Amino acid sequence: MSIATPTRAAPSEGSDAELHPYGRPAAGWRRKLFRVIFESDTVAGKLFDEVLIGLILASLVVVVLDSIASIHAAYGGLFTVLEWSFTLLFTLEYIARLVCVQRPLRYARSVFGVIDLVAVLPTYLAILVPGLHALIDVRVLRLLRIFRIFKLSAYIAEYGALGRALYESRRKIFVFLSFVMIVVLIMGTLMYVVEGPAHGFHNIPTGVYWAITTMTTVGFGDITPKTDLGRFIASIMMLLGWGTLAVPTGIVSAEFTAQKLRPRTRHCTACGSDGHSMSDRFCRDCGAALPPVTATE
Amino acid sequence: MSIATPTRAAPSEGSDAELHPYGRPAAGWRRKLFRVIFESDTVAGKLFDEVLIGLILASLVVVVLDSIASIHAAYGGLFTVLEWSFTLLFTLEYIARLVCVQRPLRYARSVFGVIDLVAVLPTYLAILVPGLHALIDVRVLRLLRIFRIFKLSAYIAEYGALGRALYESRRKIFVFLSFVMIVVLIMGTLMYVVEGPAHGFHNIPTGVYWAITTMTTVGFGDITPKTDLGRFIASIMMLLGWGTLAVPTGIVSAEFTAQKLRPRTRHCTACGSDGHSMSDRFCRDCGAALPPVTATE
Amino acid sequence: MSIATPTRAAPSEGSDAELHPYGRPAAGWRRKLFRVIFESDTVAGKLFDEVLIGLILASLVVVVLDSIASIHAAYGGLFTVLEWSFTLLFTLEYIARLVCVQRPLRYARSVFGVIDLVAVLPTYLAILVPGLHALIDVRVLRLLRIFRIFKLSAYIAEYGALGRALYESRRKIFVFLSFVMIVVLIMGTLMYVVEGPAHGFHNIPTGVYWAITTMTTVGFGDITPKTDLGRFIASIMMLLGWGTLAVPTGIVSAEFTAQKLRPRTRHCTACGSDGHSMSDRFCRDCGAALPPVTATE
Amino acid sequence: MSIATPTRAAPSEGSDAELHPYGRPAAGWRRKLFRVIFESDTVAGKLFDEVLIGLILASLVVVVLDSIASIHAAYGGLFTVLEWSFTLLFTLEYIARLVCVQRPLRYARSVFGVIDLVAVLPTYLAILVPGLHALIDVRVLRLLRIFRIFKLSAYIAEYGALGRALYESRRKIFVFLSFVMIVVLIMGTLMYVVEGPAHGFHNIPTGVYWAITTMTTVGFGDITPKTDLGRFIASIMMLLGWGTLAVPTGIVSAEFTAQKLRPRTRHCTACGSDGHSMSDRFCRDCGAALPPVTATE
Repeated sequence: MSIATPTRAAPSEGSDAELHPYGRPAAGWRRKLFRVIFESDTVAGKLFDEVLIGLILASLVVVVLDSIASIHAAYGGLFTVLEWSFTLLFTLEYIARLVCVQRPLRYARSVFGVIDLVAVLPTYLAILVPGLHALIDVRVLRLLRIFRIFKLSAYIAEYGALGRALYESRRKIFVFLSFVMIVVLIMGTLMYVVEGPAHGFHNIPTGVYWAITTMTTVGFGDITPKTDLGRFIASIMMLLGWGTLAVPTGIVSAEFTAQKLRPRTRHCTACGSDGHSMSDRFCRDCGAALPPVTATE
Repeated sequence: MSIATPTRAAPSEGSDAELHPYGRPAAGWRRKLFRVIFESDTVAGKLFDEVLIGLILASLVVVVLDSIASIHAAYGGLFTVLEWSFTLLFTLEYIARLVCVQRPLRYARSVFGVIDLVAVLPTYLAILVPGLHALIDVRVLRLLRIFRIFKLSAYIAEYGALGRALYESRRKIFVFLSFVMIVVLIMGTLMYVVEGPAHGFHNIPTGVYWAITTMTTVGFGDITPKTDLGRFIASIMMLLGWGTLAVPTGIVSAEFTAQKLRPRTRHCTACGSDGHSMSDRFCRDCGAALPPVTATE
Repeated sequence: MSIATPTRAAPSEGSDAELHPYGRPAAGWRRKLFRVIFESDTVAGKLFDEVLIGLILASLVVVVLDSIASIHAAYGGLFTVLEWSFTLLFTLEYIARLVCVQRPLRYARSVFGVIDLVAVLPTYLAILVPGLHALIDVRVLRLLRIFRIFKLSAYIAEYGALGRALYESRRKIFVFLSFVMIVVLIMGTLMYVVEGPAHGFHNIPTGVYWAITTMTTVGFGDITPKTDLGRFIASIMMLLGWGTLAVPTGIVSAEFTAQKLRPRTRHCTACGSDGHSMSDRFCRDCGAALPPVTATE
Repeated sequence: MSIATPTRAAPSEGSDAELHPYGRPAAGWRRKLFRVIFESDTVAGKLFDEVLIGLILASLVVVVLDSIASIHAAYGGLFTVLEWSFTLLFTLEYIARLVCVQRPLRYARSVFGVIDLVAVLPTYLAILVPGLHALIDVRVLRLLRIFRIFKLSAYIAEYGALGRALYESRRKIFVFLSFVMIVVLIMGTLMYVVEGPAHGFHNIPTGVYWAITTMTTVGFGDITPKTDLGRFIASIMMLLGWGTLAVPTGIVSAEFTAQKLRPRTRHCTACGSDGHSMSDRFCRDCGAALPPVTATE
C-alpha cells in the first residue's frame, strides 16, 4: 500500500503512460474517462471533482443525522434510500476508476484505492452480516476521500510547513512521548497502589488512563483521588504535567520561529552547492542558472 | 454593511463634508450636534463620550443584576424603570445620530449603526412580542458599542499587532482548524460506535462534542468513556490533543517573535522601494524624504 | 503605603542615617538592634533572618495542620499554645522593629510594615471578636513576610526578568484581557439565554463563571450544557478558547525569546548614548568609561 | 549512590580495568561474562541486551494484566509462575553482575545497581511479609532498567537537548514554581475560608489541592465552589492560571528557539577561547587544531 500521488501532467499525446502511477490509457473512451476522473484540467474534470465533494459531504450529513434517534425515527426511510443512492454512485465511481486505469491492481492497493473501497463496503456488509451493523458508521471515513481533492489545492504549502515542522522535530517528539509514557505508567501504578479499586482505580490500565487524563490537564473527574496521599501525588502530577506541556509547545514554537527567521537560502540543482540568497540568479560555484523562486517558498 | 471608521479630521471650514463617511453637515445646529456626537476634540464631545460609556456600563450592570433571581425579586421594579430610561436615552441618541449626518442611510447600514439599533430594539420587542422576552438579554451586545470609543484610543496599535499576527497566520490557522475538524468528526463517530448511547454517547454530534471537549483539554466529565477500548481511544486523543495544542501556540509565538526580532524596515511612499532602515531619512533609490517614524511602529 | 526597599549600605560611621528609608540610628543599643533586625551583614543579623524564616514556616505548618479536623481534635491544645507563642514572638519583633528605627511611622505604613502587623493581628482579633474567628486564617499571609528575605537573594535577577517580560507586554496583556472579558460576558449571557436556570445557568454571573471555566479549559463539569444548541455554542467556545490560549503564550514566548536573542547593548551613563557592545570599555560618543558588566546582565 | 555510566571502551588487552567504573576483570570466565553483560560490542552482548529488554517488557505486561480482576481470575496461576520465572532470571542476572565486576560494592550502590535490586526484591518480600503485598507493584519500576540500554542509543543527543533547555532555565523554573506555590497556598486558604467544609473544602490541604487543580486547568470537578464569592475568586484564579501557564511555555520556547537560532560556535580545547565558527579548523588565538564537529552538535 503505497502513497502514490497522481501527478498533474498535461495530457500531451505520446508514450507518457508510465508518468501516471496507475497508468494513463493511450486513447479511446478509457482515455476520456481517465481525464474526467483522475485529472482536473478540463471542464468535465473540474465538474466531476465538485460533484464528488458534494456527494461525499451530503453522505456524511446523512450518516450524522441518521445517528440522532429522533431524526432517525422521522426520516429513517428517506435516509436508507439516500444512503443506498450514495453507495451505488460511489460503487460506480470505484468501478470506473478500476476500469479506466492501465494498472487497476496498483490503484486498488494504493491508499486512496483502499479508502475508496472502505467508503462503499460497510453498507453492503451491513446487509450481508447483520451483526456488523455497528460498523456501518465506518462510512464516516469517506471524509478522507476529500483529501484527494484537497491535495491539489493551494493549501498544500501550509500543510507542508506544518508537516516539515513536525518532521524536523520527530526525534524530540519521540523522546518526549517515551518520557511521558514512562511517567504515566509509573504514576498510574502508584495511584492504583495508593487509592485502590475502592476509589475507582480498578487496575493499572485504569490508573494509566487517569494519569493521562491528569497529565494532559483534561481532568474529566470521573475518577479522582480521595486519600490525602493520593491527592498529594495528584498535585505533583498536575504541576509536572503543566510544566511538561511546555515542552511540545516549545519544540513546535522553536521550529516555526526558526522557519520564519532563518535566512532563506537555495540549493543549486546543477552542482548541489547551498547557501545562495533569494536574489541570486546564478550559482556562485558552477555558474548554472538557479531555479526560479516559487510563491510558496 | 461596511466598517466605516469616522476619521478624526479637524473641523476645518470648507467642503470637507465628503471626508467623513456619513457626511459632516456644513453649518448650523446639525453641525454643532455632529461635533458633539461624532467627534471628540471639543469639551462637549469628550463629555458626551464619557457619559455614553457610563450609561452603557450602567445598563449592562442592570442587565446582569436583573438576571439574578433574588436581586430581581427585590429590585425588579427599579430595574424596569432604569432599563426604560436607558432605552429611551439610547433611542434619542440613535435619532440624533440619524438626524445630524448628511447620509443617514449610510450610517444606519454601517456596523456601528446596526449595533446602535440592536442596543435599543430588544426592549421594545419584548413589549410587543411577549414570546421574545428571552431575547431581551441581547441587550448585552451594547457592550460592543464601547468599541466605538476604544477605537480612538492609544491601544489601537496593540489591537493591530494582535490582528496582524492572526492575519499573517490565517492560512496556517485554516489548515490547522480543518485538521482538527476532521479528527474530531472521525474520533467522535468512533467513540459513538465504541461506547454507544448506553454510556452517554447518544449520537454522532454528541460524540463530536465530547471529542472537542477532550481534544481542547477542557474535559467537563459529563460524558466519559466507560469501556476499556473507549478509554484507550480517549487516551490517544488526549495525548494527540495535547500535542496539537502546541501547533496554534507555535504559530502565534513564531509570529510575535518574528515581529519583535525582524529588522524593521520602511517603505518609500514615493517610489515604493523597501528595506530602508529606521534611521534613514531619504529614500536610497529616488531621494524622496521618507515618512517620519511613528510612535507605534 | 510605599514599597520602600531597605538598601544594603555598609554600616559605615557617619551621617548616613538618611540612606535607610526608615532611618538608621546613629549609635547605642538601638543601633545594635537595627543591625541585627534590618541588616544581614553580621553573624547575628544572618542568624536572626534564619530564625525568622524558621518561625514563619513553622507557624504556617501549624495553621495548615490545625485546619485538618482529625489533627485539630488530637493536637488542638498544643496548636493553640504554639500559635500564641508565634504571635507573641512576632509581636515582640514588630515592637522591636518600631523601636529601633528613626522613623517608625514610615516603617509602619510601608508594605512590609503592614504585612508584619497583619501577621499578628488575626490571633488577637479572634479573641476579642468571636465572630471573626474565620478570619484567623488570614495568618497564612505571613508567607509574604518571607519575601523580605527572598528580596535580598540572588534570585532577584530572575524575578526581574519575569517582571520585565510581563511589564514589556503589559499593553498586549491588557488588550488580550479586555478581549477575553468581552467574549466571556457575551458568551455567558448567550448560554444563560439558551440553557436557562433549568440546566444550572441560574443567572448571567453564573453563565460568565461557566464561560471562564470553559475558555480557560479548566472544565469543572459542575455546570454543563444539555441542549444541542448549547453544546454547539460550547464547542465553538472551546475551540476559540484553545486558540486564544495561544495568544498570552505567544506574547510571553516572544518576550523571553527577544530577551535571549537581542544583541545586548549598554547605555553610557555619562552622555546617555546607547548601542555600546558588551565588550566596549569606553563610550564611543563621549569617551567616558562605561559601567562594568554585572553578572545578572 | 552515584550515576556511574559504563563507558563503551573497546575491549583492548592491558591494564584498562580502572577505566570501567565497576572494574573490568583482566581475563578468564569473569572477563567473558563481563563482556556479555556490561558491553554490547559482541554478538552475545547485543543478544543479551535484546533478551533483557524482552524480559523486562514481558514482566511489565504480566504486572499490568495481573492487576485486572477478570484476567487475574482466569490466568492468576500462570501469572504467578511467570512472575517467579522473571524474578529468578533477574536474580540470576543480578548475581552475575555482582560476580563479574571487580568492585561489586560500587556496582551495588550505583543507581542502576539499586534499581536492579528493587526489580527483584518486591516478589520475595511479598512472600515473607504478607502485609506488604500491595508493594509488589513497585515491580513496575523495572521499566527504569530499560534506561540502561536506552542510554547507549542514538537518542541521547535529543535527551541532552531537552535536559540542557531545562538546566539553562533552572533558575527561572525555580522562581516560577515558588511563585506558584505561594499563590496556591494563599488561594487554597482563601477558598477554605470562603467556601468551608460544607462545600467540600474540608481543610487547607484540600483547598491547596483544589487550587492546584484549578491553576493547572485540570479541573476535575470533584470539589467546586458553590458560593458567588467563591466562584468569583475561582474565575480570577482560572484567568491567572491561564496567564501563568504562558510563563513555563515561554521559558522553554525561548530556550529551544535560542538553541536553534544562536550562531553555533566552538571552544578551543587548548586555550579555552570561544567564538570559533563551525567551519574553522584551527584556533584563531593559539593556532591549536579545533576538535572535530560531532554529528550531534
